Formats: sequence, structure tokens, C-alpha cells
Amino acid sequence: MPELRQDIISGRWSIVATERAKRPEIFSQARFQKKSSGQACPFCETHESLTPPEVDAFRSRNTKKDSPGWQVRVVPNKFPALSMGSQLNSKFKYYQSRAATGYHEVIIHSPDHQKSLATLPLDWVVKVLKMYKRRYQQLAKPPIKSIVIIVNHGQMAGASLEHSHSQIFAMPIVPEIVNQELNQFNHYQQFKKGCPVCLTIKQETSFKDRLIAENKNFLAFCPFASRSPFELLIVPKTHQPQFEKLSELELTNFAQILKQVLETLYKKLKNPPYNYWLHTAPVCYQVNERSNYHWHLEIVPKLAIPAGFELGSGININIVEPTEAAKYLRQSV
Amino acid sequence: MPELRQDIISGRWSIVATERAKRPEIFSQARFQKKSSGQACPFCETHESLTPPEVDAFRSRNTKKDSPGWQVRVVPNKFPALSMGSQLNSKFKYYQSRAATGYHEVIIHSPDHQKSLATLPLDWVVKVLKMYKRRYQQLAKPPIKSIVIIVNHGQMAGASLEHSHSQIFAMPIVPEIVNQELNQFNHYQQFKKGCPVCLTIKQETSFKDRLIAENKNFLAFCPFASRSPFELLIVPKTHQPQFEKLSELELTNFAQILKQVLETLYKKLKNPPYNYWLHTAPVCYQVNERSNYHWHLEIVPKLAIPAGFELGSGININIVEPTEAAKYLRQSV
Repeated sequence: MPELRQDIISGRWSIVATERAKRPEIFSQARFQKKSSGQACPFCETHESLTPPEVDAFRSRNTKKDSPGWQVRVVPNKFPALSMGSQLNSKFKYYQSRAATGYHEVIIHSPDHQKSLATLPLDWVVKVLKMYKRRYQQLAKPPIKSIVIIVNHGQMAGASLEHSHSQIFAMPIVPEIVNQELNQFNHYQQFKKGCPVCLTIKQETSFKDRLIAENKNFLAFCPFASRSPFELLIVPKTHQPQFEKLSELELTNFAQILKQVLETLYKKLKNPPYNYWLHTAPVCYQVNERSNYHWHLEIVPKLAIPAGFELGSGININIVEPTEAAKYLRQSV
Repeated sequence: MPELRQDIISGRWSIVATERAKRPEIFSQARFQKKSSGQACPFCETHESLTPPEVDAFRSRNTKKDSPGWQVRVVPNKFPALSMGSQLNSKFKYYQSRAATGYHEVIIHSPDHQKSLATLPLDWVVKVLKMYKRRYQQLAKPPIKSIVIIVNHGQMAGASLEHSHSQIFAMPIVPEIVNQELNQFNHYQQFKKGCPVCLTIKQETSFKDRLIAENKNFLAFCPFASRSPFELLIVPKTHQPQFEKLSELELTNFAQILKQVLETLYKKLKNPPYNYWLHTAPVCYQVNERSNYHWHLEIVPKLAIPAGFELGSGININIVEPTEAAKYLRQSV
């Protein structure tokens, strides 16, 4: 059963989840090899029996759960990092640990093994994001305190399966990085009387050189302090703490800008591996539309390997000026 | 010139260092390929002219700077992330940024291209660590506030050159991760009346199942909240905030345990890629031997790829129980 453990020197949390465990010997064998493509993909249509039972789906009328006919399908992760049945295994009272209670789900973007969010049609990306919202609303209840939705695209970005999918992590704690952001928002409100994202939107739209895309509700740009080349941030243009409060129209515009920037990365960087994650105000906060948080989606192409300095300091070294990165991405293909 | 930039949403710092910059187009080409081995290694003996001029070395009598005859050689990084000539380039007053003033040096472990700290003789590892101490003492002056020494071993751990070497980063700020640790030490002192590392040493030596190695002055073990399989922590057994205060005898024992655990990883995991970093109390703190910090060295074998969840939450998922990892490493080969 997965267990959350707090490091005693740094305060950092880890999840020890040994269900996926391999025998230690396996780590002495060849590493980072291409996965063999011979095995059946559990996310493809007609392979529904290879996943745990479906918990949600958009599917055609008169088709059955765990059978073909779906457009977007949600299943529990086969090797969950969080689970409702979690119990505390370790008996070390000296250390801080707790059951990794929660949900770890996979949203399969489409039945098509070849298509990703960059190449699926817009109305399909809208469906995927509708499912984000639906699952969020479904899972956002005690004991869940925070939900992070992520995509790992490509093996070098940590995707264990090639077939395009998202993962939802519904957790019993607010993760450190979201906490840091909340502190930063509160600090800004106190000392600068404003939201750092709202103020940044003003700066970036007037500076222009880091912009990548814009529509009625959203802005995408390369952040000033990008941690790696071609990092991108997508933000709603008006103050909005919670992703899950998006209207239908806003959600369509979110899908439009997300697809546009992923398509740009696909074309300009030739389908790079990337990670993205969606940060929204924690479930456990008493949030209203004026609260000190502004939800956002961060996209980091995996073009460099974080190494000892990054791990030991928390500081990333980025070898491309964000204005140069933005200029390159804006050029027509 | 490298520049430190603070992200406005997270407070996180990045270094934008474009001296190493490639043209953006290069990122659209093949990624993570094996380096061609045809090129001359700048860290090999007789290739001294391929590096920037040497700043320090242990070398045989009557041999000259930047020529053969050295055992351990220190040169500035060719593409520094920190530099004493740094000036602020960006004119965005809205954002926090500052010149990345400092030193970024490379310690070449030996003239032998094939040998690493796991396979060099003990007296050679002692020389390398003596050089750590000497460079630390040399660089630990204003405006330097903090120094982190790291090793990236193997291409998958981010080593851009195969020839075994360490890197020293002397910075004008205290990096976030060291700050978090300082907070944790202060918190422990206040609420538990002790040093978390000293207390952990007591726990681990009595529990025994996570221990890997021990000598007169040092202990090595797999931490309870290990972020990844086979993570290791080496700590001095008595409270010691500053690495650079090590006596000659302690330094020899540090070299002994470091070599022993790296040799264990080399044998049991077949020369895995790894990162390690040495954390010592910041230069800018008024430190005495009772201060709230306990220096340590963290070793993380690169056996998994940090992905969207790790990046978006700061929480790592570890699929091997630290007691299992320790058991495997303790088994004789």
C-alpha cells in the first residue's frame, strides 16, 4: 500500500509505492531502454480488459462500460501512488508518515494510439478537458485536500505507455510546490496589492516578446524565469483561482490554446517529450473568486536532464533566453 | 552573462546562462543521443589546453600549470552558470533578477579517463576531497553566500563529459533547498530540542535495517523517505555544521565511506548513473560547532525519470522500500 513519508532533513514528502515494485536486481540491468513495442497497448480500443475497470467515460450510446465505443476513458492507475484503501505500514514512530490515501486515475485521451493532444481535433481536446473538470469535481471531497492533473508525453518525459493519456493525483495533503505558490500569492497580495499572475499578464502583453498565443480568455507565454528551454505557461486572462469553475465557453477556449501551443511544440521541436501539470487552488481551501490564487498550466519540454545542481539546490540552469525561445516558437513553420 | 531570475508564481530561482546556448533549431533534432566518442576529452592528461586555465591542482613537483603531471586538477567551467564578471542583462524591473555572480569550477578527479570515485584507490579519493575542502575555503568569501559541490556521473545523470569530475557552485544566494533544510533544523531545535540528523543517527543505528556502511566518523544509510530507489545519505556521526571544518583524519574516513558506497553501487547496480551533492551550512551564516545544521552528502542513483507529478508537486514516487534497497546493497556480490 502506498505510503507518504516526510524526509527529516528537508521536510520534503515522498510516496513509497511498492506495488509497481520490481525486484532490486532489475535495477542492475540495462536502463532507459526503448520499450518493446510487441506488447498489446492497454489503452487501445478493444483492449479494455487490460486495464482496471473503467470509472468514467464519454462513450457512444448503447455501448457498455469496459468495451469499445468510448471517446475518452478513465481508469484507476494499475500501480496507484494513492489509494483509498491505503493504510500505514511503517512502524517507525520517530518519522512522519501517513497512508497515501487518495485517487490516482488515468484519462485516456482517445482510442487512437497514434494521436496526442497536439494532433487530435479541437473538439476532442475539449472532451478531454471536460473530463478533467468532471473528474476534478467528482474527486474534490474530504479527505482529498489537493488535486494535480499531469501529462507525461514521451518516454524521456517519464511516460511508461506511449498511448496519449493524462493522470489525476487526488491527495490527502497540499503538495509543497502548491504551498509555495500559495505563500507567494499571499505575499504579493500583502506587499504589492495584487495577484502576481494578473500583474504578469499586464507586463507580458505590453512587452510582447515572450508571447506565444492568445485568445479571448487565455494567454500563453515563455516565463521570464523559465527553468528550461521552451517552457510555457498558460493562464486565464481574468483572475480565477479554480480551474474547475470554468464555463463551457472558457473550457473550449482553454482547449483551443492548449492544442495550439502543443501543436507548435510538435511542429517546431519535432514532437518533443514534455511534461505538463495543472495547478488549481487546493480543494481544502475556502476559495471564492477573489481568493489569492490564479490557476495555470505549466508545460516543460524535456530537453535537458535535471542533474546534481538542480537536485541539490532547487535552481535550474536554462541555456535559452525565454525571448529567443518565444521568437523561435512564433516563427511560422 | 549568466543571470539569476526569480519565478513570480513559485518564488523559485533559475539561472539563465546562454553562453552554452545552442541555436533553438538544435532542439528539434535528435535528443539524448550518445555523445560521439571521437572527440578528444578535455579532462585527459596532455589535453590541458582544451580547458580554461587551471585555477588549482595537486601536481608533481617541477610540473607546470596547464601541463601534465597533475593528480587532481581544477579549472573554471567552460560554460559557467555563475561568473564573477556577471552583470544584469535584463531590463525588466517588474521581475526579480540579479547577476549570477560567483564561481563555477570543475574538479577533475584524476588524469585517467576510465576511473571514477568508485574505482580510484582510496588515497586518490582522499586527494579529491582535500581539494573540495581547499576550494571551499578559497571561495567562501563575500559576495558568496553558499557553496554546493556536486557530481553528475553518467550521461543519464546529466554528465556532459564522461571523464569523472565534480563541480563547485559558489553562489550569491542561499538556494531554496538549503533554506528549507535550515528551516527544518531550526524547527527541530525549537520543538524537539535536537538536531534531526543526530536524532536520526540514533534511530538508524538502533533499527539497523537501512544501514549500508559505517566507520569511526561516518554513517551511510538509505533514508526512510528516500525519493528514489537506492538513495543514500552519508553523515558525520557527531554534530558538525560545516564540511570544511573536517580534520585530516575525518576527511580520510569520509573518503573511505564515500568510496565504499560508490563501489557498492558500482558493483551491485552495474555502474549506474548517479548524482550526488554535498550540503554544508551556508557561508553567510554565523556558524559555530553548535549551530543548527549538520552537513551531509546525498547520493541519488538515476534509475527513474522525474516526471509531471514530481515536477508539479515536489513529491517523488519511489517504488522500492528503503529497507529492501539497503538489504540488496548489503548482500555480498
